[in-house]
Amino acid sequence: MTDFTLDPTLAKDTAHVEDWALCRVLLMNDAQYPWLILVPARPNLRDFHDLAPADMALASSEITCASRALQSLFDPVKLNVAALGNMVPQLHLHVIARFTDDATWPKPVWGVRPAEPYEEAALASRLGDLREAFSRL
Amino acid sequence: MTDFTLDPTLAKDTAHVEDWALCRVLLMNDAQYPWLILVPARPNLRDFHDLAPADMALASSEITCASRALQSLFDPVKLNVAALGNMVPQLHLHVIARFTDDATWPKPVWGVRPAEPYEEAALASRLGDLREAFSRL
Repeated sequence: MTDFTLDPTLAKDTAHVEDWALCRVLLMNDAQYPWLILVPARPNLRDFHDLAPADMALASSEITCASRALQSLFDPVKLNVAALGNMVPQLHLHVIARFTDDATWPKPVWGVRPAEPYEEAALASRLGDLREAFSRL
Repeated sequence: MTDFTLDPTLAKDTAHVEDWALCRVLLMNDAQYPWLILVPARPNLRDFHDLAPADMALASSEITCASRALQSLFDPVKLNVAALGNMVPQLHLHVIARFTDDATWPKPVWGVRPAEPYEEAALASRLGDLREAFSRL
Protein backbone atom coordinates (compact mmCIF):
# COMPACT_ATOMS: atom_id res chain seq x y z
CA MET A 1 0.00 0.00 0.00
CA THR A 2 3.04 2.29 0.21
CA ASP A 3 3.16 5.16 -2.24
CA PHE A 4 -0.59 5.29 -2.73
CA THR A 5 -1.91 8.81 -2.28
CA LEU A 6 -5.54 9.65 -2.93
CA ASP A 7 -6.00 12.23 -5.69
CA PRO A 8 -6.79 15.60 -4.05
CA THR A 9 -9.89 16.20 -6.22
CA LEU A 10 -11.34 12.83 -5.22
CA ALA A 11 -10.51 13.60 -1.57
CA LYS A 12 -12.22 17.01 -1.78
CA ASP A 13 -15.40 15.75 -3.49
CA THR A 14 -16.06 12.72 -1.27
CA ALA A 15 -16.41 11.42 2.28
CA HIS A 16 -14.45 8.39 3.45
CA VAL A 17 -16.60 5.34 4.16
CA GLU A 18 -14.07 2.58 4.85
CA ASP A 19 -11.08 0.72 3.43
CA TRP A 20 -11.38 -2.73 1.86
CA ALA A 21 -8.73 -5.24 0.79
CA LEU A 22 -8.05 -3.37 -2.43
CA CYS A 23 -10.07 -0.19 -2.49
CA ARG A 24 -10.62 2.91 -0.47
CA VAL A 25 -14.42 3.30 -0.43
CA LEU A 26 -15.68 6.87 -0.76
CA LEU A 27 -19.13 8.43 -0.89
CA MET A 28 -19.49 11.18 -3.48
CA ASN A 29 -20.71 14.28 -1.66
CA ASP A 30 -23.71 14.70 -3.93
CA ALA A 31 -27.08 14.05 -2.33
CA GLN A 32 -28.75 13.69 -5.76
CA TYR A 33 -27.57 10.08 -6.11
CA PRO A 34 -26.32 7.26 -3.87
CA TRP A 35 -22.85 7.27 -5.44
CA LEU A 36 -19.82 5.30 -4.29
CA ILE A 37 -16.29 5.65 -5.60
CA LEU A 38 -13.84 2.78 -5.15
CA VAL A 39 -10.19 3.72 -5.46
CA PRO A 40 -7.72 0.83 -5.71
CA ALA A 41 -5.04 1.71 -3.15
CA ARG A 42 -2.12 0.96 -5.44
CA PRO A 43 0.28 3.52 -6.87
CA ASN A 44 0.33 4.66 -10.50
CA LEU A 45 -2.88 3.12 -11.84
CA ARG A 46 -4.77 4.89 -14.61
CA ASP A 47 -6.89 2.40 -16.51
CA PHE A 48 -8.87 -0.64 -15.38
CA HIS A 49 -6.55 -2.94 -17.32
CA ASP A 50 -3.55 -1.57 -15.36
CA LEU A 51 -4.71 -3.66 -12.39
CA ALA A 52 -2.67 -6.81 -11.72
CA PRO A 53 -4.78 -9.96 -12.29
CA ALA A 54 -5.25 -10.65 -8.57
CA ASP A 55 -6.25 -7.04 -7.98
CA MET A 56 -8.68 -7.21 -10.89
CA ALA A 57 -10.42 -10.12 -9.18
CA LEU A 58 -10.54 -8.10 -5.95
CA ALA A 59 -11.88 -5.08 -7.82
CA SER A 60 -14.70 -7.16 -9.35
CA SER A 61 -15.58 -8.57 -5.96
CA GLU A 62 -15.53 -5.13 -4.33
CA ILE A 63 -17.67 -3.64 -7.14
CA THR A 64 -20.12 -6.46 -6.39
CA CYS A 65 -20.11 -5.64 -2.66
CA ALA A 66 -20.67 -1.94 -3.33
CA SER A 67 -23.47 -2.76 -5.80
CA ARG A 68 -25.20 -5.16 -3.42
CA ALA A 69 -25.06 -2.66 -0.57
CA LEU A 70 -26.61 0.07 -2.73
CA GLN A 71 -29.20 -2.42 -3.98
CA SER A 72 -30.18 -3.47 -0.47
CA LEU A 73 -30.38 0.10 0.83
CA PHE A 74 -32.00 1.90 -2.11
CA ASP A 75 -33.53 -0.67 -4.47
CA PRO A 76 -32.43 1.25 -7.59
CA VAL A 77 -33.69 0.43 -11.07
CA LYS A 78 -30.07 0.27 -12.36
CA LEU A 79 -26.51 0.32 -11.11
CA ASN A 80 -24.08 2.32 -13.22
CA VAL A 81 -20.50 1.03 -12.92
CA ALA A 82 -17.71 2.91 -14.65
CA ALA A 83 -14.02 3.68 -14.81
CA LEU A 84 -13.75 6.93 -16.77
CA GLY A 85 -11.01 9.16 -15.40
CA ASN A 86 -11.08 11.87 -18.07
CA MET A 87 -11.00 14.56 -15.38
CA VAL A 88 -9.14 12.70 -12.59
CA PRO A 89 -6.61 10.30 -14.08
CA GLN A 90 -6.08 8.19 -10.92
CA LEU A 91 -8.00 4.93 -11.45
CA HIS A 92 -11.34 5.09 -9.61
CA LEU A 93 -14.51 3.06 -10.06
CA HIS A 94 -17.92 4.68 -9.90
CA VAL A 95 -20.83 2.62 -8.55
CA ILE A 96 -24.01 4.67 -8.74
CA ALA A 97 -27.60 3.77 -7.87
CA ARG A 98 -29.96 5.14 -10.52
CA PHE A 99 -33.71 5.76 -10.49
CA THR A 100 -36.14 6.69 -13.22
CA ASP A 101 -37.01 9.85 -11.26
CA ASP A 102 -33.45 10.94 -10.43
CA ALA A 103 -32.03 14.27 -11.55
CA THR A 104 -30.50 13.15 -14.86
CA TRP A 105 -32.15 9.82 -15.75
CA PRO A 106 -31.66 8.26 -18.29
CA LYS A 107 -28.47 10.21 -18.96
CA PRO A 108 -25.20 9.40 -17.22
CA VAL A 109 -24.60 11.56 -14.14
CA TRP A 110 -21.19 12.99 -14.99
CA GLY A 111 -20.87 16.65 -15.90
CA VAL A 112 -24.60 17.29 -16.22
CA ARG A 113 -25.54 18.99 -12.95
CA PRO A 114 -23.49 20.55 -10.16
CA ALA A 115 -23.18 18.42 -7.04
CA GLU A 116 -25.60 19.09 -4.17
CA PRO A 117 -23.59 18.41 -1.01
CA TYR A 118 -25.26 16.52 1.83
CA GLU A 119 -26.37 18.34 4.97
CA GLU A 120 -24.08 17.34 7.84
CA ALA A 121 -26.63 15.12 9.59
CA ALA A 122 -27.73 13.49 6.33
CA LEU A 123 -24.11 12.73 5.47
CA ALA A 124 -23.47 11.11 8.85
CA SER A 125 -26.65 9.07 8.52
CA ARG A 126 -25.81 7.95 4.96
CA LEU A 127 -22.30 6.90 6.02
CA GLY A 128 -23.76 4.92 8.94
CA ASP A 129 -26.27 3.18 6.67
CA LEU A 130 -23.54 2.24 4.18
CA ARG A 131 -21.20 0.85 6.86
CA GLU A 132 -24.04 -1.21 8.28
CA ALA A 133 -25.00 -2.52 4.84
CA PHE A 134 -21.35 -3.44 4.14
CA SER A 135 -21.10 -5.29 7.45
CA ARG A 136 -24.14 -7.41 6.51
CA LEU A 137 -22.64 -8.59 3.18
CA MET B 1 -25.33 -19.95 -24.48
CA THR B 2 -28.94 -20.97 -25.09
CA ASP B 3 -31.55 -18.30 -24.52
CA PHE B 4 -29.16 -15.41 -25.11
CA THR B 5 -30.51 -12.96 -27.66
CA LEU B 6 -28.74 -9.71 -28.43
CA ASP B 7 -30.83 -6.66 -27.64
CA PRO B 8 -32.18 -5.26 -30.95
CA THR B 9 -30.95 -1.71 -30.23
CA LEU B 10 -27.42 -2.97 -29.62
CA ALA B 11 -27.67 -5.05 -32.80
CA LYS B 12 -28.84 -2.05 -34.82
CA ASP B 13 -26.18 0.38 -33.52
CA THR B 14 -23.14 -1.88 -33.91
CA ALA B 15 -21.17 -4.17 -36.20
CA HIS B 16 -20.17 -7.65 -35.09
CA VAL B 17 -16.44 -8.12 -34.56
CA GLU B 18 -16.16 -11.61 -33.08
CA ASP B 19 -17.31 -13.86 -30.22
CA TRP B 20 -15.12 -14.57 -27.21
CA ALA B 21 -15.51 -17.10 -24.38
CA LEU B 22 -18.01 -14.90 -22.58
CA CYS B 23 -18.79 -11.88 -24.68
CA ARG B 24 -20.01 -10.99 -28.10
CA VAL B 25 -17.67 -8.23 -29.23
CA LEU B 26 -19.29 -5.38 -31.13
CA LEU B 27 -18.01 -2.16 -32.68
CA MET B 28 -20.23 0.85 -32.10
CA ASN B 29 -21.09 2.29 -35.51
CA ASP B 30 -19.83 5.75 -34.58
CA ALA B 31 -16.66 6.86 -36.33
CA GLN B 32 -16.08 9.62 -33.76
CA TYR B 33 -14.51 7.16 -31.29
CA PRO B 34 -12.92 3.70 -31.35
CA TRP B 35 -15.71 2.18 -29.24
CA LEU B 36 -16.20 -1.49 -28.43
CA ILE B 37 -19.19 -3.02 -26.70
CA LEU B 38 -18.82 -6.39 -24.97
CA VAL B 39 -22.07 -8.24 -24.35
CA PRO B 40 -21.86 -11.27 -22.04
CA ALA B 41 -23.72 -13.98 -23.96
CA ARG B 42 -25.78 -15.14 -21.00
CA PRO B 43 -29.53 -14.72 -20.62
CA ASN B 44 -31.19 -12.30 -18.23
CA LEU B 45 -28.24 -10.18 -17.10
CA ARG B 46 -28.79 -6.53 -16.22
CA ASP B 47 -26.07 -5.35 -13.85
CA PHE B 48 -22.36 -6.15 -13.63
CA HIS B 49 -22.88 -7.88 -10.28
CA ASP B 50 -25.42 -10.25 -11.91
CA LEU B 51 -22.48 -12.09 -13.50
CA ALA B 52 -21.60 -15.43 -11.90
CA PRO B 53 -18.13 -15.30 -10.27
CA ALA B 54 -16.44 -17.30 -13.06
CA ASP B 55 -18.07 -15.08 -15.68
CA MET B 56 -16.97 -11.98 -13.79
CA ALA B 57 -13.37 -13.17 -14.08
CA LEU B 58 -13.90 -13.76 -17.80
CA ALA B 59 -15.47 -10.33 -18.18
CA SER B 60 -12.46 -8.67 -16.52
CA SER B 61 -10.08 -10.56 -18.74
CA GLU B 62 -12.08 -9.71 -21.88
CA ILE B 63 -12.26 -6.02 -20.88
CA THR B 64 -8.47 -6.18 -20.58
CA CYS B 65 -8.16 -7.72 -24.07
CA ALA B 66 -10.45 -5.10 -25.59
CA SER B 67 -8.54 -2.32 -23.82
CA ARG B 68 -5.13 -3.61 -24.91
CA ALA B 69 -6.27 -3.94 -28.51
CA LEU B 70 -7.57 -0.36 -28.55
CA GLN B 71 -4.37 0.80 -26.84
CA SER B 72 -2.16 -0.92 -29.39
CA LEU B 73 -4.15 0.34 -32.38
CA PHE B 74 -4.92 3.91 -31.33
CA ASP B 75 -2.68 4.89 -28.39
CA PRO B 76 -5.50 6.76 -26.59
CA VAL B 77 -4.90 9.03 -23.63
CA LYS B 78 -7.58 7.17 -21.63
CA LEU B 79 -9.80 4.11 -21.83
CA ASN B 80 -13.36 4.59 -20.59
CA VAL B 81 -14.87 1.35 -19.29
CA ALA B 82 -18.50 1.32 -18.20
CA ALA B 83 -21.62 -0.74 -17.61
CA LEU B 84 -24.47 1.78 -17.67
CA GLY B 85 -27.57 0.33 -19.29
CA ASN B 86 -30.00 3.15 -18.56
CA MET B 87 -31.26 3.04 -22.16
CA VAL B 88 -30.61 -0.62 -23.02
CA PRO B 89 -31.08 -2.79 -19.93
CA GLN B 90 -29.25 -5.89 -21.28
CA LEU B 91 -25.84 -5.97 -19.59
CA HIS B 92 -23.19 -4.58 -21.95
CA LEU B 93 -19.73 -3.22 -21.28
CA HIS B 94 -18.43 -0.16 -23.07
CA VAL B 95 -14.68 0.07 -23.77
CA ILE B 96 -13.93 3.38 -25.47
CA ALA B 97 -10.62 4.89 -26.55
CA ARG B 98 -10.54 8.59 -25.67
CA PHE B 99 -8.37 11.45 -26.92
CA THR B 100 -7.97 15.03 -25.76
CA ASP B 101 -9.06 16.19 -29.23
CA ASP B 102 -12.06 13.87 -29.62
CA ALA B 103 -15.58 15.20 -30.14
CA THR B 104 -16.67 15.33 -26.48
CA TRP B 105 -13.46 15.25 -24.38
CA PRO B 106 -13.35 15.45 -21.37
CA LYS B 107 -17.04 14.61 -21.11
CA PRO B 108 -18.34 11.07 -21.32
CA VAL B 109 -19.50 10.14 -24.82
CA TRP B 110 -23.04 8.98 -24.08
CA GLY B 111 -25.97 11.09 -25.20
CA VAL B 112 -23.89 14.14 -26.16
CA ARG B 113 -23.63 13.93 -29.95
CA PRO B 114 -25.43 11.85 -32.55
CA ALA B 115 -23.46 8.91 -33.89
CA GLU B 116 -21.56 9.38 -37.14
CA PRO B 117 -21.74 6.01 -38.90
CA TYR B 118 -18.62 4.68 -40.64
CA GLU B 119 -18.36 4.71 -44.41
CA GLU B 120 -18.58 1.11 -45.67
CA ALA B 121 -14.89 0.80 -46.55
CA ALA B 122 -13.79 2.45 -43.29
CA LEU B 123 -15.96 0.05 -41.31
CA ALA B 124 -14.51 -2.99 -43.08
CA SER B 125 -10.99 -1.68 -42.49
CA ARG B 126 -11.67 -0.96 -38.80
CA LEU B 127 -13.13 -4.45 -38.27
CA GLY B 128 -10.09 -5.98 -39.95
CA ASP B 129 -7.70 -3.97 -37.78
CA LEU B 130 -9.54 -4.99 -34.62
CA ARG B 131 -9.58 -8.70 -35.50
CA GLU B 132 -5.87 -8.57 -36.26
CA ALA B 133 -5.13 -6.76 -32.98
CA PHE B 134 -7.19 -9.34 -31.06
CA SER B 135 -5.33 -12.19 -32.75
CA ARG B 136 -2.00 -10.72 -31.58
CA LEU B 137 -3.02 -10.60 -27.87
